[in-house]
Amino acid sequence: MKAYKDLSREELQAVQTELQAQYDKLKEAGIKLDMSRGKPGTDQLDLSAPMLDVLNSKSAFKGADNVDLRNYGVLDGIKEAKELFAELMECPADHVMVFGNSSLTIMYDLISRAMVHGIGGNTPWCRQDKVKFLCPVPGYDRHFAITESFGIEMITIPMDENGPDMDMVEEYVNHDAAVKGIWNIPKYSNPTGIVYSDEVVRRFANLKPAAPDFRIYWDNAYAVHHLYIDNKAQILNIVEECEKAGNPDMYYELCSTSKITFPGAGVAALITSPANIAEIKKTVTIQTIGHDKLNQMRHVMFFKNAAGIHAHMEKHAAILKPKFEAVLDCLEQELGSLEIGSWIKPLGGYFIAFDTLEGCAKRVVGLCKEAGVVMTPAGSTYPYKNDPADTSIRIAPTLPTPEELKQACEVFVLCVKLASVEKYLEA
Amino acid sequence: MKAYKDLSREELQAVQTELQAQYDKLKEAGIKLDMSRGKPGTDQLDLSAPMLDVLNSKSAFKGADNVDLRNYGVLDGIKEAKELFAELMECPADHVMVFGNSSLTIMYDLISRAMVHGIGGNTPWCRQDKVKFLCPVPGYDRHFAITESFGIEMITIPMDENGPDMDMVEEYVNHDAAVKGIWNIPKYSNPTGIVYSDEVVRRFANLKPAAPDFRIYWDNAYAVHHLYIDNKAQILNIVEECEKAGNPDMYYELCSTSKITFPGAGVAALITSPANIAEIKKTVTIQTIGHDKLNQMRHVMFFKNAAGIHAHMEKHAAILKPKFEAVLDCLEQELGSLEIGSWIKPLGGYFIAFDTLEGCAKRVVGLCKEAGVVMTPAGSTYPYKNDPADTSIRIAPTLPTPEELKQACEVFVLCVKLASVEKYLEA
Repeated sequence: MKAYKDLSREELQAVQTELQAQYDKLKEAGIKLDMSRGKPGTDQLDLSAPMLDVLNSKSAFKGADNVDLRNYGVLDGIKEAKELFAELMECPADHVMVFGNSSLTIMYDLISRAMVHGIGGNTPWCRQDKVKFLCPVPGYDRHFAITESFGIEMITIPMDENGPDMDMVEEYVNHDAAVKGIWNIPKYSNPTGIVYSDEVVRRFANLKPAAPDFRIYWDNAYAVHHLYIDNKAQILNIVEECEKAGNPDMYYELCSTSKITFPGAGVAALITSPANIAEIKKTVTIQTIGHDKLNQMRHVMFFKNAAGIHAHMEKHAAILKPKFEAVLDCLEQELGSLEIGSWIKPLGGYFIAFDTLEGCAKRVVGLCKEAGVVMTPAGSTYPYKNDPADTSIRIAPTLPTPEELKQACEVFVLCVKLASVEKYLEA
Repeated sequence: MKAYKDLSREELQAVQTELQAQYDKLKEAGIKLDMSRGKPGTDQLDLSAPMLDVLNSKSAFKGADNVDLRNYGVLDGIKEAKELFAELMECPADHVMVFGNSSLTIMYDLISRAMVHGIGGNTPWCRQDKVKFLCPVPGYDRHFAITESFGIEMITIPMDENGPDMDMVEEYVNHDAAVKGIWNIPKYSNPTGIVYSDEVVRRFANLKPAAPDFRIYWDNAYAVHHLYIDNKAQILNIVEECEKAGNPDMYYELCSTSKITFPGAGVAALITSPANIAEIKKTVTIQTIGHDKLNQMRHVMFFKNAAGIHAHMEKHAAILKPKFEAVLDCLEQELGSLEIGSWIKPLGGYFIAFDTLEGCAKRVVGLCKEAGVVMTPAGSTYPYKNDPADTSIRIAPTLPTPEELKQACEVFVLCVKLASVEKYLEA
């Protein structure tokens, strides 16, 4: 099949007629599929069901230092959970603070606290003239929603396969004191799946921020979420690199078990310097007496150690790999030679990012929706939901079955083709 | 025994010599006891241990509307949990939003949200010149800590056995637009145990606030925490009264299972108008994808309905009543005729509030500490930890065993006597 760009107007019209006929037929089929959401499938959730048996009415309910896990207290998480996250994330346990079920909440509260109370004794952001955040794109819509909700100005930073454009990042961070943070998903990034290179991580650690209350928001959401057990991506450790660079307090690293055990009932943790933890505890102690220690212990008893988590993640990979490959195979087979879209084959994470021809993403998502396939709204991966080139589409292949995925993907590629032909015919 | 105020100087000196000898002997005994914290005892926690068996690896994990309880979603709580809280708190289910494990966090976040985003479209508090809260005293130190942490000016409102001084409350709320809220524990108040009278609740519901973003913070923490199953206090329903008064959005009512099941692993809920819930959801949806639905379902399956909770609370009462009575009997027996302290016999809740002679509370708590009995720091029950008369002491009788309580209470009354004699001798 020839690339669309090389087709004559007549050829394009012929292709359009054929595609339109296929599309109309598809619409009649009454398909109802959803590739919009980064949710684990039921079979993945079943992997962790035995975790609910490790604590029961016969349990001792005692933690380290004789803590009754059922009662009030232990603001920063039980010792056993801190040690588990420390081993998993390869940092000292005194760099770990364990929270409730959501790393999103930890991040929201970090920003909320900075707005009202400030960071490191600096003026609270709500009393500063202007606060800006850098937003590598395409990125995670819920990150951008947090900064938008606080009225923080978001600046788009392009990414390539090694991470954000670090020249731009350095330019902003090192010279503009209004720049207070940058959102990152450094490993298996949402949605592109790219992995930050060692050079990118080192340049992050060696930033010389103009703002003393600048922090790197390092959302390591997919730290152990590999698709290929023989090809696991590694990134440099932000804790160690920042310490080496003399910036020990410059990062907040986040992680959680939301996509390891249960998204609704996992455990989330903040990893940062002991000085940052001491500061954060001063306000968290006003907000809560402590998080759910029973659920923390449930995780500790179920996994025992980091090796337990890694072994568990291999079971997730076995379920997810065929799903990702169903989509990737379909894209390659149907679009490989047409030059109307591009994508990166991810080695982990929860998404495949697809780039259409300029100005086609919204149209593709709209066509999919009409045909019964729900995609994440186009633009969602950009601050203010505004993708200026209108090319970025996020595909979430984890929740549907492989059969459903195959069908959904057929709809998707057809819509990509149709929108692309339309674009060329309009030109 | 004569009242201390009627003793001559010589008699007081003789009493002091005798008390001091007893106190010195006690100090040598090396007692280590704690009456400082409103924590349930182990036997109370054991009552809820079977709750951990109702969900296990064999469970269906399905909620109403086919929700997978393990996965992401359901921002405002599962339907079943909303219905349970609605029945318990006697309000419609659409007035309930279920959160995580802490009503303290709900309250902190309500204030935090008002600071940054405002309430009801009004100017955020951080951009208003002055924000004030009314604080009935003695009250709950963690309430006051929240408002203090946000720099909100706290105004002390005296309470009697019917609740706060409503003339003062009306004067402030109806005429000062800087007054944005009032903290309340309307039933079995912390620490006095008093119960708001019907008139007080009605006057609350009929406030005509000068500030459109004024809300009543109605922390109904001890709604079902009776000590006497044949003498359960009832208060008027704030939801109904506010609706009747044409102020349907004026209250935020809080409750939780922290002292019903597990303080670290309970479920908390906000009860307020559907309009308020709709507003709150707009920001909570940025902060989290949802709270722990498995733990919500655990509670629903364990209790089944409000009757299940009431029956469970009778078991708590059977454990707590002897503890409260051990303290009350000791106070009555040792101090009943001395006129050096007063207290209210509570019908529920977690505390006994004790008033010393003026200027003696700190000294009593200090003497207790020296003798090995930890009390809540004097002043804690006042905003800024400042009890101007230095009379208020909070006794928390729930955690120690009855035997420990008896011993701790003997130390306490001795310290009250000693501090009181010192005061009269200094006069």
